[in-house]
Amino acid sequence: MTTAHKVVGVLGGMGPDSTVDFFAKLVAATYAERDQDHLRIVIDNDPTVPDRTAAVEGRGPSPAPHLGAMARGLIAQGAEVLVMPCNGAHAFRSAVLDAAGDVPFLDLIETTVAATRARLPEVATVGLLATDGTLAARLYDDGYAGDGVRALPPTPADQALVMKAIYAVKRGRSDAQTAATVRAVAERLVLAGADAIVAGCTEIPLVLRDGEVVVDGRSVPVIASTDALVARTVAFATGAPPPG
Amino acid sequence: MTTAHKVVGVLGGMGPDSTVDFFAKLVAATYAERDQDHLRIVIDNDPTVPDRTAAVEGRGPSPAPHLGAMARGLIAQGAEVLVMPCNGAHAFRSAVLDAAGDVPFLDLIETTVAATRARLPEVATVGLLATDGTLAARLYDDGYAGDGVRALPPTPADQALVMKAIYAVKRGRSDAQTAATVRAVAERLVLAGADAIVAGCTEIPLVLRDGEVVVDGRSVPVIASTDALVARTVAFATGAPPPG
Repeated sequence: MTTAHKVVGVLGGMGPDSTVDFFAKLVAATYAERDQDHLRIVIDNDPTVPDRTAAVEGRGPSPAPHLGAMARGLIAQGAEVLVMPCNGAHAFRSAVLDAAGDVPFLDLIETTVAATRARLPEVATVGLLATDGTLAARLYDDGYAGDGVRALPPTPADQALVMKAIYAVKRGRSDAQTAATVRAVAERLVLAGADAIVAGCTEIPLVLRDGEVVVDGRSVPVIASTDALVARTVAFATGAPPPG
Repeated sequence: MTTAHKVVGVLGGMGPDSTVDFFAKLVAATYAERDQDHLRIVIDNDPTVPDRTAAVEGRGPSPAPHLGAMARGLIAQGAEVLVMPCNGAHAFRSAVLDAAGDVPFLDLIETTVAATRARLPEVATVGLLATDGTLAARLYDDGYAGDGVRALPPTPADQALVMKAIYAVKRGRSDAQTAATVRAVAERLVLAGADAIVAGCTEIPLVLRDGEVVVDGRSVPVIASTDALVARTVAFATGAPPPG
């Protein structure tokens, strides 16, 4: 079970489709001539973690104890670095950090902010596609504040459409209409002043890809939190220089 | 961490792309209205497991101790049923069974044989697409023997093409040519007497799908070991009646 690379532990299942997406991209991003060159990745795909939005809004139990237990379990399995490809769960990241102790935790919000800075140093306003919980916890407002970037949420009516789309993905029921709805919300964020779109929920990249947001004939960048975390995870686990 | 369903433990990474494929199909096969209805799945995607074919052929170390350690780790993580979506690794399944103790292990070879019987009760000969290790260990010859089904391997020249294709998938380098090569080998197996094709390596379904093998205008069934294991795993973990 020894490897020159760090073993990656994934707090997953929030939701399962986005964990599949993260895992697939992580494998694809790893150069490998044979199985043995790939990263060892241990995943706890646990969809029973209490709903993050409900907890942030005070309508449900906190997922914090559950997340701490997952982190400890992954470390017991051999994880040498932890990642959690769910933005909303980062409202409870202190539980993961407490459980992780000396094991590094690659923060998804910070990673996405850094990826934005690296790719779009001049950006002033990002349009934010995220869950109600991520918005209410102000994860990206706080994350971008240090860079002087404004995180612009959709209108309340559009945010309701975003939540409906996210839950359709979680149910495995997203379709072309779901994708069209999310794209339309993104385009309205651009018309409202966004220079770029941040897919600040790991379900969003499953229905909105970079290059698909076009306003007045101009393609507007989409920064996917999932992709940013994949790039940082591979760089960290393999000891390669960080991307960007 | 409690759930009405059994926690599924996956001995993965052999190779990583096929583990992604198995995981994606397992999530897709699970009916879910929200995250919390999905199965909890713990995965040890460990690509450092020694090469199975090399071990069967006496050219490399046995993966048995490694597989046993993976099984114990997954059980420590909470796994209540174990699966190993790698056919060749089943040459060393006794190590998994020993480590699993009372935790059930859903055997991929037996599951594929049962799926063949359920779908094609009249089949006499299956054409086998598998690694050299799986062929040398006679896993499917022995598996089908009880049903009186003959497992027909490719010619040596065609088997070399199959191995090349499998390793291209493992490297993430498969392309349309790889898929065309595997399809051509499958079609020659049909011409040699196979009534159906068994994708007896979890890399094969990534380049050959059911419905793609057509000989003399007739579509020949492709039984994918991956899909058979997904169906059985969902049925077992959710307590649903087994498929077929």
